[in-house]
Amino acid sequence: MRHNEFVRTMAGTDNRKELITEGPVIVLCEPQLGENIGMVARAMANFGLAELRLVNPRDGWPSDKARSAASNADHVIDATKVYGRVEDAIADLHFTYATTARHRDMLKTVRSPREAISTLMTKFKAGEKTGLLFGRERWGLNNEEIALSDEIVTFPVNPAFASLNIAQAVLLMSYEWMNASMVEPEKAVFGAIDSEIASKQELIGLFDHLESALEDARYFHPPSKKERMRLNLRNTFTHANLRSPEIHALRGAIAALERRWKKKRGEW
Amino acid sequence: MRHNEFVRTMAGTDNRKELITEGPVIVLCEPQLGENIGMVARAMANFGLAELRLVNPRDGWPSDKARSAASNADHVIDATKVYGRVEDAIADLHFTYATTARHRDMLKTVRSPREAISTLMTKFKAGEKTGLLFGRERWGLNNEEIALSDEIVTFPVNPAFASLNIAQAVLLMSYEWMNASMVEPEKAVFGAIDSEIASKQELIGLFDHLESALEDARYFHPPSKKERMRLNLRNTFTHANLRSPEIHALRGAIAALERRWKKKRGEW
Repeated sequence: MRHNEFVRTMAGTDNRKELITEGPVIVLCEPQLGENIGMVARAMANFGLAELRLVNPRDGWPSDKARSAASNADHVIDATKVYGRVEDAIADLHFTYATTARHRDMLKTVRSPREAISTLMTKFKAGEKTGLLFGRERWGLNNEEIALSDEIVTFPVNPAFASLNIAQAVLLMSYEWMNASMVEPEKAVFGAIDSEIASKQELIGLFDHLESALEDARYFHPPSKKERMRLNLRNTFTHANLRSPEIHALRGAIAALERRWKKKRGEW
Repeated sequence: MRHNEFVRTMAGTDNRKELITEGPVIVLCEPQLGENIGMVARAMANFGLAELRLVNPRDGWPSDKARSAASNADHVIDATKVYGRVEDAIADLHFTYATTARHRDMLKTVRSPREAISTLMTKFKAGEKTGLLFGRERWGLNNEEIALSDEIVTFPVNPAFASLNIAQAVLLMSYEWMNASMVEPEKAVFGAIDSEIASKQELIGLFDHLESALEDARYFHPPSKKERMRLNLRNTFTHANLRSPEIHALRGAIAALERRWKKKRGEW
């Protein structure tokens, strides 16, 4: 499937929306707990990955525990394939990363998640099929499996507390994939409603209104300090980068406070 | 604690190594399951965050389930603080992000995790105390909690499958924090140190004062719109990035307007 191609699907939390189903294959080597496999599937679905392969899952496949832990990522669970040997699981791939938590004494390039995903994205765009290998819950990948991979990716964890589980590791890689897939990864997926930054005219209208109300309320006291106080307030609101509806709300608030005592004065 | 300062500790998986214990405070609003709190603590520890605060955890605190799920992140669990109100949990912070999964109809800047962490890192280097607010498992943060935050951060999830749990959300933010900590760690502090940015406590004091004055002035009309109007004003002032002296001046202005009509009322 081409990069940035989308497929409609009934799976997921909102079937009116588009589901991205492309990216590197996730390969779990001898995973032990069905729950972990399910959480891996869910993490993949969250960030648009869809192709999961298992090498000798300890508790067999299919797994009810995996399906339950996948929280409706049924499209990933249903498409999961099982292999007896890692060689078969990666046979059709062109480039794979081995994920490791600790240093291995191998002459192999070690990348951060972000670098690794950048490499995978480049290869993906060039039409290569890629994969990420994850090891057992207890001790990760063996040297044999690492040797089959082109490069190593490791996570920038706190050296004193480096206990990422496989679902977390898959989550981080999938997240980086999603970031790399987006044209502008720095940009949030939905923007603030920010078309309405107030004009200076609106801002000055607020100043005049507020200052007039405060003048009536004898806020500017003593008179020698008035200019300073007035400028402080103006600077406060200039600094506040206000939008039109915010100015509208503030003027409403000032008017309410003003009206209150003007009304009293009228009645007095 | 200074940026890039390290502390030796006996906690974690390898007590010969250094443990980073600095960064934004993680605030969980009304978390339900102890397991989730524990997994949040573990995710924080993995990437060097250490300060966890809970607002009204449903099943109480301390929690054996949390400690067990934290997988030896005991230093985070032991230091966790519990609050009855989110206002108290963030009182000493200067800048907070609200994390949301879906669009909220608010005039607030929305950032990606990477942008948000970049912002927090800048503020951290300038000596500000920052936080990240996470909501309930089922429905996230309420509008009240979001209105107390300066900006919103949301995750670039697959729109068709957007079910990140809180531990995963905390993991991603913590991971980005670790990434940002490593980029040019020697880089000089940039930007003026704005030592006078108001704390959340000062901001909440302003809210309370303004809302009480407006309540007396019958600004909140009709009653059905009160909540919306109140949150709009809170969002306006949260967005305004106010400094302590600015809050002081604003409260003086509100007091002047209030005093004016209260005086009239007294005379009436």
